[in-house]
Amino acid sequence: VLALWLQDRALAVRDDVPAPHAPSGEAVVRVLLAGICNTDLELVKGYYPFTGVPGHEFVGVVDAAPDAPQWVGRRVVGEINAACGACAECAAGRRTHCERRTVLGIVARHGTFAQALALPLANLHEVPDGLPDALAVFTEPVAAALEIQEQVAVGAEQRVVVVGAGKLGQLIAQTLAALGIATATPDGIPARRADVVVECTGHPEGLALAKAAVRPRGTVVLKSTYQGETAVNLSPFVVDEVTLVGSRCGPFAPALRALAEGTVRVDHMVHARYPLARAVEAFRHAARPGVLKVLVEP
Amino acid sequence: VLALWLQDRALAVRDDVPAPHAPSGEAVVRVLLAGICNTDLELVKGYYPFTGVPGHEFVGVVDAAPDAPQWVGRRVVGEINAACGACAECAAGRRTHCERRTVLGIVARHGTFAQALALPLANLHEVPDGLPDALAVFTEPVAAALEIQEQVAVGAEQRVVVVGAGKLGQLIAQTLAALGIATATPDGIPARRADVVVECTGHPEGLALAKAAVRPRGTVVLKSTYQGETAVNLSPFVVDEVTLVGSRCGPFAPALRALAEGTVRVDHMVHARYPLARAVEAFRHAARPGVLKVLVEP
Repeated sequence: VLALWLQDRALAVRDDVPAPHAPSGEAVVRVLLAGICNTDLELVKGYYPFTGVPGHEFVGVVDAAPDAPQWVGRRVVGEINAACGACAECAAGRRTHCERRTVLGIVARHGTFAQALALPLANLHEVPDGLPDALAVFTEPVAAALEIQEQVAVGAEQRVVVVGAGKLGQLIAQTLAALGIATATPDGIPARRADVVVECTGHPEGLALAKAAVRPRGTVVLKSTYQGETAVNLSPFVVDEVTLVGSRCGPFAPALRALAEGTVRVDHMVHARYPLARAVEAFRHAARPGVLKVLVEP
Repeated sequence: VLALWLQDRALAVRDDVPAPHAPSGEAVVRVLLAGICNTDLELVKGYYPFTGVPGHEFVGVVDAAPDAPQWVGRRVVGEINAACGACAECAAGRRTHCERRTVLGIVARHGTFAQALALPLANLHEVPDGLPDALAVFTEPVAAALEIQEQVAVGAEQRVVVVGAGKLGQLIAQTLAALGIATATPDGIPARRADVVVECTGHPEGLALAKAAVRPRGTVVLKSTYQGETAVNLSPFVVDEVTLVGSRCGPFAPALRALAEGTVRVDHMVHARYPLARAVEAFRHAARPGVLKVLVEP
């Protein structure tokens, strides 16, 4: 099949990638639309050593599901962590942290910038009829934004700052606004006065901005993953007794609901759409400063 | 008065340090015994730009208290953060995070390696009669160990690892043991299986050891403060959704109780005792590998 291929930090569109097949418990999904995420750009920089088809944001139609033919033809989005179901983390109910997980387009599983992909049936969520593909493709990043609410008690009486005005930052601000929580930028409040700061710049420099904004005993939610190390001293976080909370993938069901009900609006965030054959160009476009979501259409 | 003096990263005992005086609301305390903490050693390395008398662990006798003569003659220990009572942090009840605080022997207030020191009356705690000086002088570090229980819900069913076998690490293990919680070293459990890890090595390298021990969605309590930056990538903490909790000063009343009741034993931790005139030598002794508490006696 036609697919974007990442190897040794180089991207190329190839037409000789083997078609995915669905082992027991999995489905083959024909990709309708896929989104480029900052993590994809970091993968190309070497954030994680991955060879294969990148991409983890998609909406598609089930083409084959050996164990569950009733899924065939349904329009779906999919959670990206494929769990073993048997390890200590799975047993503890932390399936997104499965010790033997594969991750769509990130760890040992080909991703979304292809004509088709394979995922476990357990990962699939049917897309409501009224929700267009161009909105449904945002389910994964909206879920990642909602994960914050799963981890940290955020209330309307708190001062919340979002550091990072990119795609994820905008989605986080919207998901919090849906709870009646107004968010500010670091410039929008006095230094050291934020109860909660969400760091989603995608750059190591974001940590210092978050530190400057958070109050003593406040909370910094860490959303950025990036390639490379940076020199930091955590002592100021110790002295101020700040809590740092790493935050990754989130719940799909409420994300689909938020998109379907329009409490999160994403249409204005689509800055470009490319056919799969021009996916390398799409990646270059997505890496430009100020560009939000770039979609790829097989 | 005779005192140890820190200036430009150099220590010297001087006999011309002005005697402390107590403004309204404060007391002058004659120091009976003072302890050398890792933070003192880091101060000498330049962790924080401080000029004056270092030291923040002490037991002493109140010599003068203009507003409260009933305190004179009482044996006391003292909390190290002197709060303004008026700033936003004080108003929010976070007095140890007062924006205008002075800190005994660390920030804009002369410390314990002197014949006398001054502290607000509000900071003083009377020492129970039966508690010897050599035990009471541990109140501040025991309180710092107890702060962990104020911040993190630690239960006997959890696997707790302490990284760092120094003074603070031993006190932390003992304060947790008093709750029925056995602690392990990083070697004592399989990697990535600890629910809670306390990092108190005093070195930036401790963070990597803590990361290797903590399970996904586990908690790392950060106790180390040190001079200098270190290269880290926080992305693994994000991917594993680890929570990092900065932890500093703790509650004195339960610390005094633990020492008086013997639930925390510290006698074996005293490795040396020096007169104040030989305090520079005492610091060199305290900096040697494997040395636990060194006490200084004015």
